[in-house]
Amino acid sequence: MRLRNVKGATDIINASPYIIKEYLNYKGTFKNLFVNDNPLEIEIGMGKGNFIINKALNNPNVNYIGIEKYDSVIVRAVEKLANLSLPNLLLIKMDATEIDKVFDKEIDKIYLNFSDPWPKNRHHKRRLTDEYFLKKYDRIFKNKKNIIFKTDNRKLFEFSLKSLVNYGYKIINISLDLHNDDYDNITTEYEDKFLIKGFNIYMGEFTKN
Amino acid sequence: MRLRNVKGATDIINASPYIIKEYLNYKGTFKNLFVNDNPLEIEIGMGKGNFIINKALNNPNVNYIGIEKYDSVIVRAVEKLANLSLPNLLLIKMDATEIDKVFDKEIDKIYLNFSDPWPKNRHHKRRLTDEYFLKKYDRIFKNKKNIIFKTDNRKLFEFSLKSLVNYGYKIINISLDLHNDDYDNITTEYEDKFLIKGFNIYMGEFTKN
Repeated sequence: MRLRNVKGATDIINASPYIIKEYLNYKGTFKNLFVNDNPLEIEIGMGKGNFIINKALNNPNVNYIGIEKYDSVIVRAVEKLANLSLPNLLLIKMDATEIDKVFDKEIDKIYLNFSDPWPKNRHHKRRLTDEYFLKKYDRIFKNKKNIIFKTDNRKLFEFSLKSLVNYGYKIINISLDLHNDDYDNITTEYEDKFLIKGFNIYMGEFTKN
Repeated sequence: MRLRNVKGATDIINASPYIIKEYLNYKGTFKNLFVNDNPLEIEIGMGKGNFIINKALNNPNVNYIGIEKYDSVIVRAVEKLANLSLPNLLLIKMDATEIDKVFDKEIDKIYLNFSDPWPKNRHHKRRLTDEYFLKKYDRIFKNKKNIIFKTDNRKLFEFSLKSLVNYGYKIINISLDLHNDDYDNITTEYEDKFLIKGFNIYMGEFTKN
């Protein structure tokens, strides 16, 4: 994502009740923040938040945490939330590499939407579906591991398929042209732009015991 | 494939030295027909034979058997072979469902190129990547199981990915747009037509212990 500096972003973020500030204090106990035992699903790299906000609106009995590292992006989600009261959604501003320092055996599902493809081979470890991250995810999932992955980037999808399958994930669902399939899909900001341009969207739902 | 009746096809096929006639007699001992211990690879549904003939020409140290059930199609392969001397290629006219009656622990690799997609859900067992066939393949592979699959049919590729992966196959290689990738590819008759029309070709190389 091309980032624009947003004036006063840090102050706006810090003032939002949706942001979990001392997030390292809740490891293994995030459910206490929601005051219920509902499933906990996270989106890593939620960008401007369309996807996770709509997920939270549509599924009041599921808890969601959106994760994003960039101030200038997460501030857009915070602004959208200003007039909404969503008790089942919280946000964390952090880098994905920290994920296993923040959570512990408490996640039911991970969404990865339009993640950075890191096209250079030597950067493969930075891709959110690389084995480097899959090992971290193993530590944060509660029971069954569930990953839902969506991208417009063919090479990233091919890499991710190979990485997930060879790590032991099975395929629940797959679409190599999501918007020509009959699938209950919530779009992201990126996706809306890509659709207008006629880009192909790839989607996979993966699971592992 | 739309089939045209070819006059005298049966006679031409029966007269060809490339055709294995009493193929049920060689179960487990096909290597004797090649008089060597080279790896044995088969193409199920070889159509008019371009792919397997080129494979055999390019790889003299691998033995190939092409399988096709339709007279009017296999006769085209037989005609192409009339002026070639290929000691590492043989053909069998048979239905794929017979595969485990014909071979026994002797195959190193299976090629499935542009197989019939059988688009109706109730016909899924007829798709050559359905579990029904994967179980048969288990019985004919010598050691490691290797399947290379190519199609222009998105739904068939999605189905095959799911079927193969959930059966335990791992992914060696995958391309969701083969002709825009740098891959050593031998085309089939179908593929050549599809390329001219600008169709997308999907390819996967799968392996299982």
